[in-house]
Amino acid sequence: MNRQCILVSRPEGVAQAENFEIIEAPERSLAEGEIRVRNAYLSVEPAMRGWIADKGNYAEPVAIGSVMRAIAAGIVTESRSDAFATGDAVTGWFGWQEEAVVPHSAVLRKVEEIDLPLSLSLGILGINGVTAHLALTRVGEPKPGDTLLVSTAAGAVGSAVGQIGKLLGCRTIGLAGGAEKVQLCRTRFGYDEALDYKDPQFAAMLAETCLDGIDVYFDNTAGAISDAVLPHLAINARVVVCGTASIAQWDPWPQGPRVERHLLVKRARMQGFVIFDHMERWDTSVAELARWIRSGDLVYEEDVLEGLGACPDALAGLYRGENRGKRVIRL
Amino acid sequence: MNRQCILVSRPEGVAQAENFEIIEAPERSLAEGEIRVRNAYLSVEPAMRGWIADKGNYAEPVAIGSVMRAIAAGIVTESRSDAFATGDAVTGWFGWQEEAVVPHSAVLRKVEEIDLPLSLSLGILGINGVTAHLALTRVGEPKPGDTLLVSTAAGAVGSAVGQIGKLLGCRTIGLAGGAEKVQLCRTRFGYDEALDYKDPQFAAMLAETCLDGIDVYFDNTAGAISDAVLPHLAINARVVVCGTASIAQWDPWPQGPRVERHLLVKRARMQGFVIFDHMERWDTSVAELARWIRSGDLVYEEDVLEGLGACPDALAGLYRGENRGKRVIRL
Repeated sequence: MNRQCILVSRPEGVAQAENFEIIEAPERSLAEGEIRVRNAYLSVEPAMRGWIADKGNYAEPVAIGSVMRAIAAGIVTESRSDAFATGDAVTGWFGWQEEAVVPHSAVLRKVEEIDLPLSLSLGILGINGVTAHLALTRVGEPKPGDTLLVSTAAGAVGSAVGQIGKLLGCRTIGLAGGAEKVQLCRTRFGYDEALDYKDPQFAAMLAETCLDGIDVYFDNTAGAISDAVLPHLAINARVVVCGTASIAQWDPWPQGPRVERHLLVKRARMQGFVIFDHMERWDTSVAELARWIRSGDLVYEEDVLEGLGACPDALAGLYRGENRGKRVIRL
Repeated sequence: MNRQCILVSRPEGVAQAENFEIIEAPERSLAEGEIRVRNAYLSVEPAMRGWIADKGNYAEPVAIGSVMRAIAAGIVTESRSDAFATGDAVTGWFGWQEEAVVPHSAVLRKVEEIDLPLSLSLGILGINGVTAHLALTRVGEPKPGDTLLVSTAAGAVGSAVGQIGKLLGCRTIGLAGGAEKVQLCRTRFGYDEALDYKDPQFAAMLAETCLDGIDVYFDNTAGAISDAVLPHLAINARVVVCGTASIAQWDPWPQGPRVERHLLVKRARMQGFVIFDHMERWDTSVAELARWIRSGDLVYEEDVLEGLGACPDALAGLYRGENRGKRVIRL
């Protein structure tokens, strides 16, 4: 039998534990072109909220009664595809379940960096690291000497953005919530400055830290933090819209200060980034990230939950802010 | 004596007639490097609101007691500069006055298209046409077959954007206020579709007209019109933020529906455009626009006021929407 975590009801806002259920499903045999993957690690990520929502999104919503869509990493245990052989380490759309029987097209990538932990293919060497790297370089277009400001600076994407920006010659400023994360930004992720957006003096500290303007604002939040940041954009600034973590619901659609005047006066641009538009650059990005990890220039945090039973509450916990680093579930 | 229109007080919002005064100033002689220009046409443009405002803008505010900053077109009547000779037709920062004594660097351009009316150098062959052309091509990046939607579609910039977009192979949709301007969009400016944003059915008509999404949204408004448009962006859409005409004041800062989700889901970008960043392309742009005018591919409307006495109320009238086409004052 194969244990699976399925979506049983559609939440208002972020999915909670009661929206999921663990079931046992019979194993099935492989059709031509399919592979069987024994999952070792399941990914938990903020974008799952969008995959579950029932409208206006960039991916088809997960159907009620089906296995929760997720990227996972595992080992091929059986193959009827020429593309993969038994024993291959792979990452792909394998879902929140112990074992996946999927067409070989569900594989995002054969993991080549077998000298590094397999779980990294879900984080710093997977969607988080590649998103950080490509969104920063393709949309943010940082130049040496630029001031780069990162929201969710201690998070799985943000912490990589800050470090990569530093490697590319930027002055880096991280925004995080609470003293512990701010400290992590300074000591572990090497930000030049780190500010606590929960501090009552945040607005004043931000203004003082960004006197010369922000050239690249890498945003994962879209809420009050962005509203505080946008007035400090430099001329020709680039705003990378990578996530909207601070907005719990888009129905009713939230209001905020209008952005047009900032964009016009500063000749700035705001642009959305979705990693799945950039798959052709995935391999070269992972190779670059792996080099930085091996040389010690790029560090990461992982938040590891144990067992399939951790799935139902894992996403809600992410939105409660309880993780430190990339959240994965080890099976 | 030289009659001038000076700014005598700083308005809240749009400057009204009482914020200006007509005075007579003595003529003065030229210093080395200066020229004397007899103004033939004075420009009136929405951006003047920003030049008068006392904070947060992309140009130094006009000082109380000084001649109102304006682009004008005229003839050089005296020169102590090697760059210009008596009799040259020029356009530049000559202000709302009959005669300007300015350094030659105040000249934006010697007018070469002397087969066409001089007033055009303030409109379709000046800041409006060049803004339309460069903002559309440099930021909007239209491709043949794209759907291009233009707000203030019958205005001095918008009407040029629609026609240039059509020349570049786009399907063009114009938004304008009232049946008369909508008709002008259809019959004179050649839009494929034109919609009245004041129509109670506007939202439904817009949705129906933009079923396949908007690839380029050229915006001069930034208000409720944009809020209605943004949900209809196509994947990879470009939003050109060229003006914010529908926002009367930015203090207090107005609120609107947040844009981040649209930008993220559609991988779209919003970018501000200020013509003064693109002066090195001015000449080639004017040459291209002049070719289109001579061939009859590009038409324009002018709204001509008579005499310096028309200055004080000219800007307020623009914001009351009373002009049809580019507003200029003939001296």
